[in-house]
Amino acid sequence: MPSPIIVLVAPQLGENIGAVARAMGNFGLSELRIVRPRDGWPNPAAEAMAAHAAPIIQSARIFPSLPEAIGDCHRVYATSARLRDMRKPTVTARECAQQIPSNEKTAFLFGRENSGLSNDELTYAHALLTIPVDPTCPSINLAQAVVITAYEWFQAQHSPITAELDKKAPPASQQELYSFFDQLEQQLDQGYFWKVIEKKPRMWRNIRNLFLRAEPSSQEVNTLHGILSALTRQK
Amino acid sequence: MPSPIIVLVAPQLGENIGAVARAMGNFGLSELRIVRPRDGWPNPAAEAMAAHAAPIIQSARIFPSLPEAIGDCHRVYATSARLRDMRKPTVTARECAQQIPSNEKTAFLFGRENSGLSNDELTYAHALLTIPVDPTCPSINLAQAVVITAYEWFQAQHSPITAELDKKAPPASQQELYSFFDQLEQQLDQGYFWKVIEKKPRMWRNIRNLFLRAEPSSQEVNTLHGILSALTRQK
Repeated sequence: MPSPIIVLVAPQLGENIGAVARAMGNFGLSELRIVRPRDGWPNPAAEAMAAHAAPIIQSARIFPSLPEAIGDCHRVYATSARLRDMRKPTVTARECAQQIPSNEKTAFLFGRENSGLSNDELTYAHALLTIPVDPTCPSINLAQAVVITAYEWFQAQHSPITAELDKKAPPASQQELYSFFDQLEQQLDQGYFWKVIEKKPRMWRNIRNLFLRAEPSSQEVNTLHGILSALTRQK
Repeated sequence: MPSPIIVLVAPQLGENIGAVARAMGNFGLSELRIVRPRDGWPNPAAEAMAAHAAPIIQSARIFPSLPEAIGDCHRVYATSARLRDMRKPTVTARECAQQIPSNEKTAFLFGRENSGLSNDELTYAHALLTIPVDPTCPSINLAQAVVITAYEWFQAQHSPITAELDKKAPPASQQELYSFFDQLEQQLDQGYFWKVIEKKPRMWRNIRNLFLRAEPSSQEVNTLHGILSALTRQK
């Protein structure tokens, strides 16, 4: 039964990465993945700040891109302070902790200290995770956002609610979905779907969000592939 | 309706004090009191780390002793990682947040980064507050312990449970209690109560804990004063 994975996207300060690892250790998380850390890797400041959780830093994995970092995950939550103009379900850290099935590999995404996650990065998530804060002082330190998310997950492990979680078929892995997205994009390109090419990035984000919201299972992704093949054969 | 007060006892690093202030601001707390900060005050590192919560640092009050810092509080919780050999109620951060009546001035005590609160300092608390952690990695960073405590308080403000809280007579202020303790101690000294003087610190702690557990109201403290006067007049 894997614990959720913490994914830091382009974090800036080694001290913050270390503080994240320490917070993870406090609440039973051990797998840290980092996408393009600004100051390179390994980072001695991270290990120093991690204290007893230094093994989490030592076994952290580095990725060149976000899709590669979450390829094997079934469920992805992106933390976001700001409300976004995006059709995605939004849950609080507490609600989220109570809805994670234990048989799915889950990732929590955290963005850069100064600017969070980009809209493009958010499209990889099934849902946005928010921490309700005082609106007059909403900017949470990176490690403190991680500690609250991890804390809620850890508390929920000891609550009866999660034990009752529906054991339905898990959603497809991100890799399966990406493979479908790649084929779909290729077909749309070939079909001159994007009438105004400048609008493609935004339109393509919205399309991917639509499929993510549906949380298709592996079998359903296969079905989507089949539909795509069937449609393109007719051209 | 006052928000709870954060009391740091002998904190060591200005950076941690600043991170505490930032965490407080995120979750609607504004009053910071500091007992004997190791590196003096003001501390530029604290203000730098506080980010948008710098006003909390600027208005923080410094005290030479813990009793002075919490003299006007009705209810005092001491955070403690270790289980202590002490007869005191223990609550989790979540339980605590749901039991704070809005008409009582409440303080949360946090100890030094390296050693927490001393047994003597713990005696000033009505209850111990714990944060359930992974036992293999239990040491929580100071600001992260504060952020979880403040986060739980803030979430509870928006829950129906706290709105239902019993509005019974609040316990006496700490000043009222100390005035009674001072008189009691003086009388016990004069009466050669401490047969072995080396044992006095521990015995006296246990006695104070006993009275604190009773959570006497102002009127009951007056009654205790009366009892003390009545008993000592008979000598």
